[in-house]
Formats: sequence, C-alpha cells, structure tokens
Amino acid sequence: MASQQPPYVAIAQRKQSELAASIPSEWQLPTQLIPEGMLSPADSITEGPKRYGRVNVMEIPRTCGILTSKELDITENYDVRGLVSAMTEGRLKSEEVTRAFCKRAAIAHQLTRCLTEPLFDRALRRAQELDYTLRQTGKPVGPLHGLPVSVKDTFNVKGVDSSIGLSALAFKPATENAALVDLLQSLGAIVIAKTNIPQTLGTLDSCNHLFGRTLNPINRQWTAGGSTGGEGALLAMRGSMVGFGTDIGGSIRVPAMCQGIYGFKPSNGRVPYGGQESGQLEGKGRIALQPVAGPLARSVADLGAVMAEIVPRAELFGEDCIPGSWQPFSVPQSLTPPRNFTIGILKTDGLVTPLPPIARILDEVASQLRQTPGVEVVDVPLPAALPKCQGLAGRLMGVDDGSSMLDKIESMGESLIPWLQGRMKRGKALTIDQLARLQAQRAEVELEMLKMWTLSSSNKGRRIDAIICPIAPHPVPQMDRYNAVGYTSTFVLLDYPAGTVPVRPFVESDLELGREMDAPVLGSWDKANRQLWNEKTVDRRVYLDSPLSVQVVTPKQHDYQLFQAMEIVDRAVQGKTGFPSAKL
Amino acid sequence: MASQQPPYVAIAQRKQSELAASIPSEWQLPTQLIPEGMLSPADSITEGPKRYGRVNVMEIPRTCGILTSKELDITENYDVRGLVSAMTEGRLKSEEVTRAFCKRAAIAHQLTRCLTEPLFDRALRRAQELDYTLRQTGKPVGPLHGLPVSVKDTFNVKGVDSSIGLSALAFKPATENAALVDLLQSLGAIVIAKTNIPQTLGTLDSCNHLFGRTLNPINRQWTAGGSTGGEGALLAMRGSMVGFGTDIGGSIRVPAMCQGIYGFKPSNGRVPYGGQESGQLEGKGRIALQPVAGPLARSVADLGAVMAEIVPRAELFGEDCIPGSWQPFSVPQSLTPPRNFTIGILKTDGLVTPLPPIARILDEVASQLRQTPGVEVVDVPLPAALPKCQGLAGRLMGVDDGSSMLDKIESMGESLIPWLQGRMKRGKALTIDQLARLQAQRAEVELEMLKMWTLSSSNKGRRIDAIICPIAPHPVPQMDRYNAVGYTSTFVLLDYPAGTVPVRPFVESDLELGREMDAPVLGSWDKANRQLWNEKTVDRRVYLDSPLSVQVVTPKQHDYQLFQAMEIVDRAVQGKTGFPSAKL
Repeated sequence: MASQQPPYVAIAQRKQSELAASIPSEWQLPTQLIPEGMLSPADSITEGPKRYGRVNVMEIPRTCGILTSKELDITENYDVRGLVSAMTEGRLKSEEVTRAFCKRAAIAHQLTRCLTEPLFDRALRRAQELDYTLRQTGKPVGPLHGLPVSVKDTFNVKGVDSSIGLSALAFKPATENAALVDLLQSLGAIVIAKTNIPQTLGTLDSCNHLFGRTLNPINRQWTAGGSTGGEGALLAMRGSMVGFGTDIGGSIRVPAMCQGIYGFKPSNGRVPYGGQESGQLEGKGRIALQPVAGPLARSVADLGAVMAEIVPRAELFGEDCIPGSWQPFSVPQSLTPPRNFTIGILKTDGLVTPLPPIARILDEVASQLRQTPGVEVVDVPLPAALPKCQGLAGRLMGVDDGSSMLDKIESMGESLIPWLQGRMKRGKALTIDQLARLQAQRAEVELEMLKMWTLSSSNKGRRIDAIICPIAPHPVPQMDRYNAVGYTSTFVLLDYPAGTVPVRPFVESDLELGREMDAPVLGSWDKANRQLWNEKTVDRRVYLDSPLSVQVVTPKQHDYQLFQAMEIVDRAVQGKTGFPSAKL
Repeated sequence: MASQQPPYVAIAQRKQSELAASIPSEWQLPTQLIPEGMLSPADSITEGPKRYGRVNVMEIPRTCGILTSKELDITENYDVRGLVSAMTEGRLKSEEVTRAFCKRAAIAHQLTRCLTEPLFDRALRRAQELDYTLRQTGKPVGPLHGLPVSVKDTFNVKGVDSSIGLSALAFKPATENAALVDLLQSLGAIVIAKTNIPQTLGTLDSCNHLFGRTLNPINRQWTAGGSTGGEGALLAMRGSMVGFGTDIGGSIRVPAMCQGIYGFKPSNGRVPYGGQESGQLEGKGRIALQPVAGPLARSVADLGAVMAEIVPRAELFGEDCIPGSWQPFSVPQSLTPPRNFTIGILKTDGLVTPLPPIARILDEVASQLRQTPGVEVVDVPLPAALPKCQGLAGRLMGVDDGSSMLDKIESMGESLIPWLQGRMKRGKALTIDQLARLQAQRAEVELEMLKMWTLSSSNKGRRIDAIICPIAPHPVPQMDRYNAVGYTSTFVLLDYPAGTVPVRPFVESDLELGREMDAPVLGSWDKANRQLWNEKTVDRRVYLDSPLSVQVVTPKQHDYQLFQAMEIVDRAVQGKTGFPSAKL
C-alpha cells in the first residue's frame, strides 16, 4: 500500500516528525489543553471550518503552566525598545528572553500550527553568546540586542530548509542567509523560528501539504490569512516580538488584519528582499510585480523600532535596496508650506463595494481623526485609474506559464489546496512585447494616480499626506473564503507603502441581521464579495469578535510618513488625544 | 526621378528647410565665416573625418559680430546661480538673456548642426511673460527664473516634433510635455531648443537622415559623441546654460567627455524620464535596462544648481521618480564614524585595458587627490563581477527583436548610418524565462558588486565614498570610431550615479610616438580598442588637444554624494587647495 502513496506523503511525515521533535517535551501541552478539532496536518488542509469549534486559544499560553511568571512577564509586558533596554541594561538576560519566547512560540504552534522551522536550539546558543559579549565588553551587540524575531519560511537561514511547504524543496537546507537575516543578526536580533505559509504562496490561507493549515488563534474557524499567516498567528499569541513577511497581493497586511495586529508593507528597496525561496522563476519580480519584505508586530511603535534600524542599513545588505533614513523628509518650503497633516478617506476601489461593517469602520476612523488636533480629513474622490489597478497587478503576477511552481507540486504528487483548485492552472507565458505593454500601462496608471495626492491635476504641491481605505471589502472570513485582493495588490502595483491598523472588534450591532445591501452590484468581484454578507450564503454571526482594521497608505517611498500616519490613526482610534511624539 | 527617391528624402528636406527658416536672417553667419567642409546633412552622414579640416569653431560666436558685447557677457560670464540672481534682482531681463542664448545657439547650430527644433520664438515670448510677472509681483516665477536650457530631441515639448531623427516620426507634434519639461517650466527655466541625436539613439555619433551629423566644435574630425551629442556641442559653444539628455550606455557622459564639459547620469528616479520618444517598444525600460535622464553643463556647480531644484520635486512630476533631498544622507554614526572622504581608483573593467593616456590621466587625478586635505585615496582591486557587467547590459538592451525601431527606419527607406551598418539587425525576442534569468544574473552581480564599496565581504560599514575610473578606454576618437561602452553602460546596469569630469587636454607628451602597448590583449573588445592606439591603424596626432576626462561613480542612489565627489575631483584637478564648500 505504502508504495502507492505519492512521494510527498513520506516527506511530509518526516518533516512533521522532525518539527514535533524539535519541541522539548517539557514545552509540550498536555492533551487536555489542546482544543478538540486540532486535526492532523493532512486533514487540516481539506476539512473546512465546520470541523472546528468556535475556539479562542489566546489565553492558553498564560494558563497552561508551561511558562513561569517571569516568562509571562517577559512575553507580555514589554515592547521592542523596552525589552532591548532591559537586556542591554542587564535587567534581563538575552537567554531568558529567548527561552521565554521560544516556549511561547512552541505553545502557539501546538495550537495553531504556525511554525515550519523552530530554531530554538540555535537561538538559545546565540542568546548565550550575546550575554557573554555584553558581559565581556559592556556593550550590546547591536541596537536590537537580543530581540527575538521570526521570519516567514521563504527567508533563507543557513543550514535550514526553505521548503515553503513544498515537499520538492524539503531537506535542501539553504547555504546562505537571506540578506534580511544577515542584517537582523548584525543588529543583535535573534531569529527563533520560521513560520508557515500557503502552498504556492499565492493564496490567503496558510495551508500546505508539508505543515498543514495555520489556524487563527482568536477563532479557529476564521482564516489566519496569508501568505504570512504563520507570523500572524505567532505574533498574536506573543510567541515572537516582531515577524518578517513578504507582500505582493497583501501577504503582510492580510494576516495582520486577520489577527488584529499591525503589518507594514514598505516600498521597494527599504527592506532587503533578496535570498528568499519563492518557488517562482528566478528574476521574475524584476520584470513583473516585485514582492516586498516587511514587518508585522503588535504596535506601531514596534514596527517603527525595527524599521528605524533596518532602513538606514538596508543598502549595505541588499542589492535590491536604496539608501534611506528613518525620519521626515525635508521638502522645500516653497512646495509644502507648514500645514496640518492631511488624511484622505478613500471609500472604495471602484470594483468591490465594501460590506457595511467595513464602510462603517472607515467612517468611524474618519470621525475620530477629525477630532485630532493637527490633522485635517478630506474625502478622496475615486481616481479614474484606480479600478484598473487590480487587473494590472493580477496580470503582472501571471506573466510566466506558472510551470516553475506547478512542476514542483506535481513532481511529488501533491494536490492543490482547496482554495487553489479551479483557480490555479498552467498558463501561457507572455511575449516580451505583451509584457512591455503591460508595464507601459502600469506607468500610465501611476502617472494618473499622482493626482490623487494633490486632489487636482494642476497644483503639484502635495495636499494629502496619507489615505485610509479598507484592507479588504469584507471582515475576516471563515477559512478558504477570503475573496478580494484588489485593495491590497493595488499598492504593490503602485509601490505605495501601506499598513494595517486594527480598530475594534466586530460587535452585535454590526450584524444588521435581516438587512441586505442595496448598492448595485458592480461586477463579478463585487458579486462574490456579497456572498460574505448575504444571509443566504453566510451566517453573519461568524464575524462576531473578529478584528476590524483599516489600511493606511502614503505616496511611493514615503515609508517614514506611513509610520507617522499609522501612529496618528492608531492614537485616534485608541482615543488618545494630542499628537504623536513624531515630528511632522 | 523624384518619384524613385525613398520617402524619407522629401521629409528630411522639408524638416531641414523649416529648421533653417527658424533662424532669423540677422542671426545667420556670413558664408565666409563658415569653415569649409560644412557638408550637406546627407553628405555629413556618409562622409568620414577626412572631408573635414582640423577646425576649431569655438571662437566664432565671439568673433562673428552677431552677438552684442552685452550678449557675449551674458553668455560667457555667468554661472547658473549668478545668471538667475541677475534676472531676479533686475540686473538683467529674462528677455535679453533668452535672446543672447538663442542667438548663440543659432550660431552654434550653423557650425555644428546641433539643433533639431529651435524654440526661439516661444522662448522669447515666455521670457517676456517672466519679465512681466516679476515686474508685477516682485517675485520670480521659480528658483530657476529665466534660465535658458535645452533638451535632447527625445523629450516631448507640446506642439513640437519628437522625431528623434526618424522621418517616420516627423511632423507628428507631441500633445503633451515630458514630465521633466513641465518640471523645468514650473521652476522658471525656459527651453530654448531641442538637440540632435543619432539614428536609433543607439550609437555614440549623433547622426541621422533628418538632421545630418552633429560636429564636434573643438575639432570637427572628432565625434561629438552621443546619443546626447547635440547638447554636447551646444553647451560647449555656450548656446545654452544647461542641457538635459538621457543615458543608457553612456549617452550623457560620452558627449560630455567628447566636448570637455560635465555630464551627470543620475540614479533611476531622481530626474523624471517619462514622456519621451525613444522609438523603442513602450514599457521596455521597465523590464530591461532603464535609461535615465540627467543634465550636462559647464561646471559641477551648474549641475548642482539644477539638480538641487529638480530632485526634491521629481516625485511630484514623474511617476518614475522617488522622493529625494539634495543634501548629504544622515547615516547612523555606528555605521560610518566620521572619517575622510574616501575615493577609490578603479583602473580597468577587466575587459578593455585603457590606452596609455587614459591610464595616465587616472594616475594624475589620483595623485592630485592624494594632496587634497580631507580626502583619502585607495586602489580598488578589480571586482570579480565587474567584467560581467558590459555583456549583461548589452543583452538587457536587446531583449526584444528590435522591430519597433527598424520598422520605422525601413518604412521610410532610410539606410542605417555608417556605425550601425553590420551592427544593427533584427533579432529574436527573448522569452519571459530568458528575460527573468538575465535579471536574476543582474541581481547576483549587484550583490557581488556591493563588496567593492567596503573592500571586504564581512565589514558592512561603507569604506569607499566614490570611485574614479575611465569614461572610455580611449581618448575622443575621430567620428564613427567610438568603440567601447562597457565603462559607461556598467553603471546603468548597476544604477550607480556617474558623471564626467574633464581633466586636461591631450598634449604632445601623451603621444608616445613609436611606442606600442605591451599589455596582453584581453579579448575582442580590447583588440578593437588597440586600433585606436596602434600606429598602423591610427595617427595618434588626431588626439592632440582633445579633452581627457575621468568618470566619477558613487553607490546606487547616492546622487548628492556624486555631486560632492565630482566637486572634490574637479577642484583637485584645477589645483584648488582646500575642501569644497559642500558639507561632507
């Protein structure tokens, strides 16, 4: 019988055994603490949300008894700067900090299947080295001395697989670190684990035959999002301080939304992307749509704390990076005289009308921003070029015939995961002429979109500093029902930095039971989106308690300005009066 | 008989008549002042250097009597900032400044065939508007109020042809300005003319069937360089204050070298490139090698004066631009502690050994730099990846089948200009896979090249601020003999900003008559280069008085640092002691 199994099965079993074995027995949860419905990895791929109870596992790390009270304190009561200070000032040892986060990551994994490669042993060894160096020299190794971080499985870590959930790539350890991993290590950060992703990296449910499906720790019926889904679950459970993912269609911002945390998709060239396994044709990003690397974290401050160290050094590590400084741009005053920070509200992309709770959350944030001193809020009319973006981004993702990825999948007899079935097939590669034409269309759209920031075609002085808009036109859906990437892929096409800011949970009054949308259906994407609200096709109560978020976007390469804008939005949402500390 | 002529002939005649008619009769040189051998445009294409005397026409504008003494003063005794100040402070009228430069441009054209589209009438009207506004409001229109500038024929100017020397594109006036033209006009600059280029823009001799060949005003037997050759000749003759060209293989730096002026090839995204006629497949730059726009001028200060205004505004005009400020980058001190400005000497690209006068000029500059306080000079070993750059750049220029350009040429019965014959033919477009692979190789080379700036693979702190190397491995050659673009195309491939700084003329002692090179021949490119020195294949005396220059290069996107480095090199060469005013 065994000989009739496709080749991937044995590889997946071996991979899963090694993963399980890398978690020390004293960090393993007693069976009774693991909620029912923690299916086998194989079953987790094919079984839908009905097999899971509506279970929130967020409290288990605190209650399971595996973490000491000091470890709970370490993992729950520090932000990035506070934790690094505690270590560099000798109040905490790097080793105890690393151990605390490794333990918590191990627990998170047992509840959500968020890890692919635990790196606990080497992380603890590295922590001991840091402690030794600090003791010997009195100096921290770098500005992120001892910070426990995690990276998406795509990032190469020397000596470790970058299998990205494909058995064809398993047991082929990387020979070099990705540039970002080298950069993080030079800063003193410690990579404690690599995290789960979807088969092909091209879906928003992090699910594959090697590692199974990552579950959303707030409610395991929801999607954890993707493609940086493992990071989303791990960070929500405080199993890491900061996680690094990549984003081409929304892969940083979507898992942040699904878990109610913060995600930052930089512009190109701010965070080194090189040295990753994408499964794609090498060099494709450079001729088509370029994915970017960026952080996920539990606060805007934590995103800023790592970006402040990465951005000025990125050009020294990544051939794909440019010089940058993490501070406001100095603009000639003749161009932009002193004025309020102006935030535009963009309510729709013109293709998919946001469902009522999404429209409401935008209105709420706009009204909170209007009460913030120093901030001006304006409505942004739909730019004529905006509805072209989703299609262009989609066509630019599919310029080749897809065989690089599909060959790997088929060679091991893997089936496509549910969401990809019927959606992914071999295509026909574009010709050079077709590809160039697509890029020319993109340039036209970019030029047209410049006007959104000035609210006019004549006045070239910038008028809008940031916009807010939806991350998705729907709330966090059940697994395999995430539908629309236009709101996120658009800002990769345009290379605008964009981030996720969580606002509040979905509450009873958002349900509007018995009331259907009356806005006219705009097209097939819009029609599909309505199925996530129409009471014939969904029980809206699945959305209760799900995090509702907004997307914050700034002009191309204004990444520090995005950080400022996210801080402003975040404080407005939290009802904090006054302006953030950042200079404007 | 006339009916047997290919279609381009009549179009070229009409174009040339219109061009001639746009020069007022009182600005026309008397026949006796035009040196013999000013051939017809058609003959100028095919006839070689032997038809021209060794004639320097640089003094004719001063001696011909067409310019008043005030106009000579205006065109000869101001730099950019001085001229703009004189206008904004009311010491000079914009109209008289524009007229002076238009007259001088008209004279330069009659001696070198440097213009394609004189815009004298509209420039004078615009100057009157500026004078009026200044009188009425007391305020200049912009920081470059009244500055006469010129642009390569490729830049669209509304209502004017961008024929780029192709009859197929003649009499099809542009419907919109290029982004850079809009930006320049918003700054108060006045575009007084468009300038000549080579057929296909792909050669270094500016020569085509519509406008004929641009001649080098210092010696009409030499090439004027290309593809921004018209600008080179016009600026050398002081017919414009600043010219704007584009560069993919050296098209800004080479004409600067040929005429002994300064050229600045920025990194991508610093100067808007969009809105040009390239004759190429639209969108090609984005998937292959991206040409960049940049200035040529008569001093480093003049380059800086325009870049200081363009760079911070570029993102508002060009969808292809990024935010920038024209000042030193603030780098974390932990990365780069205070130290000397470090200049590396790169003596060869590993493919073509520079001819003796080129090697000598590098040594001379290095020794002058060693005497400059605050500057440290180091030798840069040949990076292993450098010799790969020329081939990669070449392949990335030819990713399509070339039909976009050749169809235009053939449709009008134009023959290829001499240099292109045997070099340009229809090819086979790459597949998407091949193109992606090329770009992946480029990324590898870029990563490898990062090490050049640190002189090591481990220390990521930057050690070298700028390098100097040849522009070409040979002196300014006779027309149609320019041979090697590797030294210039390499820095487009790598997106390193790079500029031309003239050093001194070629003198008798550089001739080394009777002495041949003994370095072993490295390959076919090297062999071809030797023909420009071997006394059997060239009379070295043709190089006497030709400008010898060096190329200055900085890391990707460090354009302000390039300006600083060019200033340092320029002052060292001029024997000025002390450090430039720019903060370091």
